[in-house]
Amino acid sequence: MRIIRSKKEMSAISRQIRRQEKTLGFVPTMGALHQGHLSLIQRAREETDFLVVSIFLNPIQFGPEEDFKRYPRVFKRDARLCRREGADVVFYPKADDMYPADFKTSVSVSELSQVLCGRFRPGHFQGVATVVAKLFNIVSPDIAYFGQKDAQQAIIIKKMAWDLNMPVKIKFVSTVRQNDGLALSSRNIYLKPKERKDATVLYQALNLARHLIKQGNVSARDIVRRMKQLINKKKTAVVQYISIVDLKDLRPVDKIKGKVLIALAVWVGKTRLIDNIIVNV
Amino acid sequence: MRIIRSKKEMSAISRQIRRQEKTLGFVPTMGALHQGHLSLIQRAREETDFLVVSIFLNPIQFGPEEDFKRYPRVFKRDARLCRREGADVVFYPKADDMYPADFKTSVSVSELSQVLCGRFRPGHFQGVATVVAKLFNIVSPDIAYFGQKDAQQAIIIKKMAWDLNMPVKIKFVSTVRQNDGLALSSRNIYLKPKERKDATVLYQALNLARHLIKQGNVSARDIVRRMKQLINKKKTAVVQYISIVDLKDLRPVDKIKGKVLIALAVWVGKTRLIDNIIVNV
Repeated sequence: MRIIRSKKEMSAISRQIRRQEKTLGFVPTMGALHQGHLSLIQRAREETDFLVVSIFLNPIQFGPEEDFKRYPRVFKRDARLCRREGADVVFYPKADDMYPADFKTSVSVSELSQVLCGRFRPGHFQGVATVVAKLFNIVSPDIAYFGQKDAQQAIIIKKMAWDLNMPVKIKFVSTVRQNDGLALSSRNIYLKPKERKDATVLYQALNLARHLIKQGNVSARDIVRRMKQLINKKKTAVVQYISIVDLKDLRPVDKIKGKVLIALAVWVGKTRLIDNIIVNV
Repeated sequence: MRIIRSKKEMSAISRQIRRQEKTLGFVPTMGALHQGHLSLIQRAREETDFLVVSIFLNPIQFGPEEDFKRYPRVFKRDARLCRREGADVVFYPKADDMYPADFKTSVSVSELSQVLCGRFRPGHFQGVATVVAKLFNIVSPDIAYFGQKDAQQAIIIKKMAWDLNMPVKIKFVSTVRQNDGLALSSRNIYLKPKERKDATVLYQALNLARHLIKQGNVSARDIVRRMKQLINKKKTAVVQYISIVDLKDLRPVDKIKGKVLIALAVWVGKTRLIDNIIVNV
């Protein structure tokens, strides 16, 4: 496995792979890898000939009040895991190289970026779309893999790639959870023991929604209300939002029908956690 | 020469050319080709193995009050000229195919897009950057050619390609002029005989600026004032803007030094004309 820091070198490797008519799989990450990332890497390893994992903590997707500084940086450990999972290249660019002082360009996906997490993280998804557009141009993958845990991000990236005619296929991979249901996240390490226990309520609330829908409840409003009640029982948990939206355009639904995304963000202590499920009625 | 309407087919041709290790040259146009476009095509023909010219009247770069409806559409003539100049492919996509109803993505280059023409055409350069990003992804050229006549556009596209790490080289080609100095433009056909005569004043004003700078005048303010005076002598001409800016960041300069772009937009009757020169002090 090679660790590549230079964009130019990365592009040269990609060109070479494409010339050999091999398929190139790509897993973009911000590092602090957990089993969720590894499941993306494993899927890419199975489905493509040459596997690139990028590790880049993207500054422009963090707001000024957010956790960019404290976000875990464990490159050596990340690289070891990538090697173990059979990655061919870890692409690990420097921030100054990705964003020189006179950087001016941005990619936006309207509507999809202003709802759900976008309401509370202005500029976040523009930062995500921009860095992924850059990474796609440098790495030029055939298939790129994104986790369903960040469903809105994955949907936005897929839309961007489609709208801009990027020659890449976007695949979504299921969320990986702890035994008690907590979705894996690089941010879970921020949780204190009591908060860690309370954090299971996110998935419990999603399961409550699934259960209610299965029983025939189609009122988004009623379901959201009951999810909130459940979460509010936990002392350390404060709901930021709970939304039930159409999976395609992320518009809120009143009456649940078709494929819906049930998504939520909850502050557990000082840590903001997100989770979601897709339900097909 | 092939005329291709389908994005998918265009991409397949490009992939094939790249597999043959040929270089692909690309000239994106809105049709209504004149000698200015042809000089781009000729340059591309000389420098690359396979030549694609796109003809696409891009709706999203026109403002609601602008001349989208009246812009000349002469595809048959355009295709004939492309064939004569040795193009291998004319890519002629449909608007619905480029912008389906649920299209949501945009590419912006901040600062560079808000000055000069951008002040008077809000959204214009975002429309340009977005369509060129799409075309680059579909055609995947090695080199793309832009005219200096639309200097701001060319500079924005070059910046976009650089910032987003697009694997394409951007080349600028000099403005082509009539014998009396008028820069060629698809919009010149709008001009009535008297206006056509008055329109020569744009280049006269630019030459006046060049002359003054050569004589040692370094005051942008003074030079702009004298250019305005000259243009105002023509009955049908109304200045929209005259700016002297740094060629790299398009910021206005007070004291002329280094490479500057002298750019102007002038209404001649109901026709908005632009022109520019680069002066190196």
